[in-house]
Amino acid sequence: METLTIVKIGGNITDNEDLLRESLAGFAALPGKKMLVHGGGKLATQLAGKLGVRTVMVEGRRITDQQTLDIVTMVYGGLINKKITAQLNAAGLPAIGLTGADLFLIPSAKRTIGNIDFGFVGDIDKSNVNSKFFRSLLEQDITPVIAPLTADKGGQLLNTNADTIAATLAAAMSSHYYVKLIFCFTEKGVMNKQQVIPEIKRSSFADLRQSGIVSEGMIPKLDNAITALEDGVQEVYIGHALQLQEIITHHAGTRIKNEEIYN
Amino acid sequence: METLTIVKIGGNITDNEDLLRESLAGFAALPGKKMLVHGGGKLATQLAGKLGVRTVMVEGRRITDQQTLDIVTMVYGGLINKKITAQLNAAGLPAIGLTGADLFLIPSAKRTIGNIDFGFVGDIDKSNVNSKFFRSLLEQDITPVIAPLTADKGGQLLNTNADTIAATLAAAMSSHYYVKLIFCFTEKGVMNKQQVIPEIKRSSFADLRQSGIVSEGMIPKLDNAITALEDGVQEVYIGHALQLQEIITHHAGTRIKNEEIYN
Repeated sequence: METLTIVKIGGNITDNEDLLRESLAGFAALPGKKMLVHGGGKLATQLAGKLGVRTVMVEGRRITDQQTLDIVTMVYGGLINKKITAQLNAAGLPAIGLTGADLFLIPSAKRTIGNIDFGFVGDIDKSNVNSKFFRSLLEQDITPVIAPLTADKGGQLLNTNADTIAATLAAAMSSHYYVKLIFCFTEKGVMNKQQVIPEIKRSSFADLRQSGIVSEGMIPKLDNAITALEDGVQEVYIGHALQLQEIITHHAGTRIKNEEIYN
Repeated sequence: METLTIVKIGGNITDNEDLLRESLAGFAALPGKKMLVHGGGKLATQLAGKLGVRTVMVEGRRITDQQTLDIVTMVYGGLINKKITAQLNAAGLPAIGLTGADLFLIPSAKRTIGNIDFGFVGDIDKSNVNSKFFRSLLEQDITPVIAPLTADKGGQLLNTNADTIAATLAAAMSSHYYVKLIFCFTEKGVMNKQQVIPEIKRSSFADLRQSGIVSEGMIPKLDNAITALEDGVQEVYIGHALQLQEIITHHAGTRIKNEEIYN
């Protein structure tokens, strides 16, 4: 199977113009077929602040009322997505900016109200991803750049977690490609006393959590990584956005491994 | 040649949720291959107002500084484009939201500074349009929805007039399809004493202008219409967004004709 590298870059990268430009140059230089998923980060919160819209986060997730949905649609789907796409094209990598709402590429369902009403937030499932259209783009050597937005059957736009989109896309594509999924941020991987942990197995999660090595923000990332592996993604990494080349050649970052699967 | 209908809807339609929904239902029901180009209208001006960014219009065009560029990228490329695209998909029409910056579909050059510095405004040319990718979408029965944004070779996003984008796209596609281009707004066409003028020839422009029948806002629309015809577009109309079916069957709207070309 041909290799497909799926990179997710977080808000701390998209928030920083210089770091973003350098990260995109590294991404464009990766060999073979690629997809990029981006988050939104502080820009949406900043815009909400300027517009007097209150930002409420619960368990690291944004409560999304109508005004907040409009803001993330503007910031994720417009500002960040088009800026990244234009920069990749200028770097010589043919790129197309999309959301999960386009062509219902990643159909979603509005999250049901449990203890918390998250509002206009969408949950997704790998079996519904339109992998055929993504494959047709990749076969034309076009790189999709995905903003973390989806829509339900009624055409309601929904805010959707970027890590989850990356993991779900990777899972959906893993029957057609040998997928390397990289969650990027501004650390060199999962750290233990300033040292990168080169490999984490699922069985060691509880220990890492108990010892405090894995902090709060890292837990959902590791959960998404394991889910991706269980769903068939061939390789999953957590690492620095400026070390993509080193990560895919196993010279940097933290590789997450599910015991049941050895590559 | 197969028919391709290209519809441009203006800001007075995208600003009105009910009118937009009804217009999109009519658009989705049009037979055959289609493309939609949308403007932005008041939403960008409203957001600029809320953010304390001054809107300066010269000759009906928005002077686009960095902050204004960010605002139109958010509103045109994000909010309006994704809302329209999700609604069309929900109506059963597979639609993909794009800008001219994606894949350099509509490459542009920053307008040179003459008497007026328009800022981050892009000028486009039909010979540079990536009609091949648009054709590949149309052959898959996918409807492109285009926001009025482009980028130059350096990846700089640029604000670009939606009427010009529609006319330029129509011209570029006219060598491959029999193109019907419709500029839509909330009037039934070019009006004379509450009556629609069914047909306007180029030679009558000066008269219409002098008699005041063609008002200020209509002049650039007619100029774009004539340019499109000169560039090979087979049929050009100006009409109401709720009469698309009637317009393409010659039962409503104003048809613009270039004397030199008779269909």
